[in-house]
Amino acid sequence: MGFQKPPGTQDIMPGSSEMWQYVENTAREICRRYRFSEIRTPIFEGTELFKRGVGETTDIVEKEMYTFEDRGKRSMTLRPEGTAGVVRSYVENKLYGEPDVTKLYYLGPMFRYERAQAGRYRQFHQFGIEALGSDDPALDAEVIALGYAFYRELGLTGVTVELNSVGTPAVRAAFREKLLAFLQPMRQSLCSDCQSRIDRNPLRVLDCKVDQDKFTDAPSILDSLDDECERHFARVRECLDEMGIPYRLNPRLVRGLDYYTHTAFEYKAQGIGAIDTVGGGGRYNGLVAEIGGDDKPGVGLGIGLERTLLLLADQGIKPDLGNRANVYIVAMGERAEKAAPALIQRLRNAGIAAERDYLGRKTKAQFKAAERSGARFAAVLGDDELDRGEISLRSVTGGEQQAVKLDNLAPTILNILLTEKENNHK
Amino acid sequence: MGFQKPPGTQDIMPGSSEMWQYVENTAREICRRYRFSEIRTPIFEGTELFKRGVGETTDIVEKEMYTFEDRGKRSMTLRPEGTAGVVRSYVENKLYGEPDVTKLYYLGPMFRYERAQAGRYRQFHQFGIEALGSDDPALDAEVIALGYAFYRELGLTGVTVELNSVGTPAVRAAFREKLLAFLQPMRQSLCSDCQSRIDRNPLRVLDCKVDQDKFTDAPSILDSLDDECERHFARVRECLDEMGIPYRLNPRLVRGLDYYTHTAFEYKAQGIGAIDTVGGGGRYNGLVAEIGGDDKPGVGLGIGLERTLLLLADQGIKPDLGNRANVYIVAMGERAEKAAPALIQRLRNAGIAAERDYLGRKTKAQFKAAERSGARFAAVLGDDELDRGEISLRSVTGGEQQAVKLDNLAPTILNILLTEKENNHK
Repeated sequence: MGFQKPPGTQDIMPGSSEMWQYVENTAREICRRYRFSEIRTPIFEGTELFKRGVGETTDIVEKEMYTFEDRGKRSMTLRPEGTAGVVRSYVENKLYGEPDVTKLYYLGPMFRYERAQAGRYRQFHQFGIEALGSDDPALDAEVIALGYAFYRELGLTGVTVELNSVGTPAVRAAFREKLLAFLQPMRQSLCSDCQSRIDRNPLRVLDCKVDQDKFTDAPSILDSLDDECERHFARVRECLDEMGIPYRLNPRLVRGLDYYTHTAFEYKAQGIGAIDTVGGGGRYNGLVAEIGGDDKPGVGLGIGLERTLLLLADQGIKPDLGNRANVYIVAMGERAEKAAPALIQRLRNAGIAAERDYLGRKTKAQFKAAERSGARFAAVLGDDELDRGEISLRSVTGGEQQAVKLDNLAPTILNILLTEKENNHK
Repeated sequence: MGFQKPPGTQDIMPGSSEMWQYVENTAREICRRYRFSEIRTPIFEGTELFKRGVGETTDIVEKEMYTFEDRGKRSMTLRPEGTAGVVRSYVENKLYGEPDVTKLYYLGPMFRYERAQAGRYRQFHQFGIEALGSDDPALDAEVIALGYAFYRELGLTGVTVELNSVGTPAVRAAFREKLLAFLQPMRQSLCSDCQSRIDRNPLRVLDCKVDQDKFTDAPSILDSLDDECERHFARVRECLDEMGIPYRLNPRLVRGLDYYTHTAFEYKAQGIGAIDTVGGGGRYNGLVAEIGGDDKPGVGLGIGLERTLLLLADQGIKPDLGNRANVYIVAMGERAEKAAPALIQRLRNAGIAAERDYLGRKTKAQFKAAERSGARFAAVLGDDELDRGEISLRSVTGGEQQAVKLDNLAPTILNILLTEKENNHK
């Protein structure tokens, strides 16, 4: 009988995990520059938190959460997104009392029980940031700039920014009426999703892919903004212009979660075929109070790592992942095999990535394994070499070869690697 | 109403998360040297996997698992440990068909519903490695060496290795009889834990902290090893000796999980007060077959990250975490504030960690924030400077100050940082 991974989850294996590390390291490096610090909240939270923080009537809360009772009879839920937990932690740990704006990032798994389909996972992974405590529109622009810099630093091209303002709740309520007046007459002609959304969240109707064409003359929320919203949005755009971040206004852009105010944005990219949303975010000035804290404003973004990795694959981006062995020790004969553990330990202690054979293979098979390991060198040890206290250091791809005193092996290898690295940088 | 993190979980906040990163980066660096590659398996697995892979009658499976039914009515469990999922993945992805030994590492959260107590978490974190496909005792020694190198690279001192062989199942069955003959007569004098363990797993009785002193004359499993076990264990010890890894034989050492064979080891460290196990592992030659794969041998270790972090704190180890800002932009007046987003963006694009104020604070408060940020420099921008296309670059701790052309700001900062870094390395 064979065990299988749960439906909708994946095993990230060697060969892929290095690209995950590359993406995560890039996220961390960008956060270092923009001064966001890592926060790690629990994988699960009390269920109420997500009902409150994500919205009781959202698809996520209604249909997609992994909810269970723990052994203390508390209802717990695997986090379906990252913001609610971060804000809960911000409030519980009283970070709002600190003098500076709180700038946090997270990286990790999220869980939604969605229909299984290609590229959609029930355990998926997000990189997200949250900046809490400031209303400054320049901060919205910096958050947008951070995501943009992340994609660019990864080497991706063609990622664009779409931008909107969804106003304040009051603005949105007024716009809702205008929009309903436009939508109600065409109700019967819309898709079933849209029909059910009209009553629950008419702003999201405009985002429908099926009925897109029918909304050409729909009212735009950008025409309904009040002075405060106008000013905020104008400054966001001005900052983006000055920072050299291109964007396209999209007055139909609404984020999936209910708590956004003012700025809303998405990153779009040409996938195989369709143009897809790869990340997005916005300002959420009501959420902290909703979760029980002081009424502090916030702005953030979330980026799907699975989609980012798909994009990297689509664009054929293959960074140097630095994951090859430096040296493979080929041990010929019993004496050499006995000596190998001490030798490899000395190399590793010196910081060298060293590999050897653990299957008692013959010399030729060891050389093949050396090739598979991607090692720069094979260090070949036989009886003769042992007697002389030497080892033969060879390029795995052929060519150079030199005899090196065993005591000099580590420094010799480190020197060659360093020289080659410097030459590559020239 | 305030939301709280679930009992037994923790929020890892800025100020701590950097130490977590340091520990994880060290684990990754050590794995690079020893040629272990990262694997990431799902956070939950089908419940059966853990019953089979951990053992139906263990405390973990009987009392501590977070088990729930998903929306498809499957019984799922948050992983209580890392090995079962890795081995499931090894089998499911047919890695046993590859020509080389499979050397994997993982880093991540595990879940056990334990009694809440200081230093014990229900979501805890482990670094683990698994080497699958070889019986070579040198590999056991390398696994032990890797953990030892991890602690040493972190800067920890006083971590020691305890070593035992728990033999094969046949050896263990024979030893069990001998041990029972020794324990049964003293049954009534033992603690209640021991009394219940005598029947279920008498080997673990020897590990009891309460009754320790009564077992001075207990038979030792090391006297019961057969020739094969003897040879294997002798070679493990020989390799450790040659690799310069000190260890202490502890014939009473039994690992908590049922599937170990031959080598068993633990890392011990002096905590505040008592000597504690901080990690451990061993060989588990029956597990892969148990989980439905070919009968491949394995050896691995698991290290608790919470305990590692406690040790680092106990020993006062404060590595340079590289988490300070390089420069804080102090904007004096409205024009400077308007110009700040473009300026900071240029610095960040150049790889500089740059921070500024988002709260419209006065100059003096901005200087204080610059100090709090740990920035090396304050870059001070006012009307005069703007008119001259310059900025005043100052050391935050006082002293140096120079006027720099705005266009030269990024290269000037990078140059100073690089020079200082090189001087520090001298």
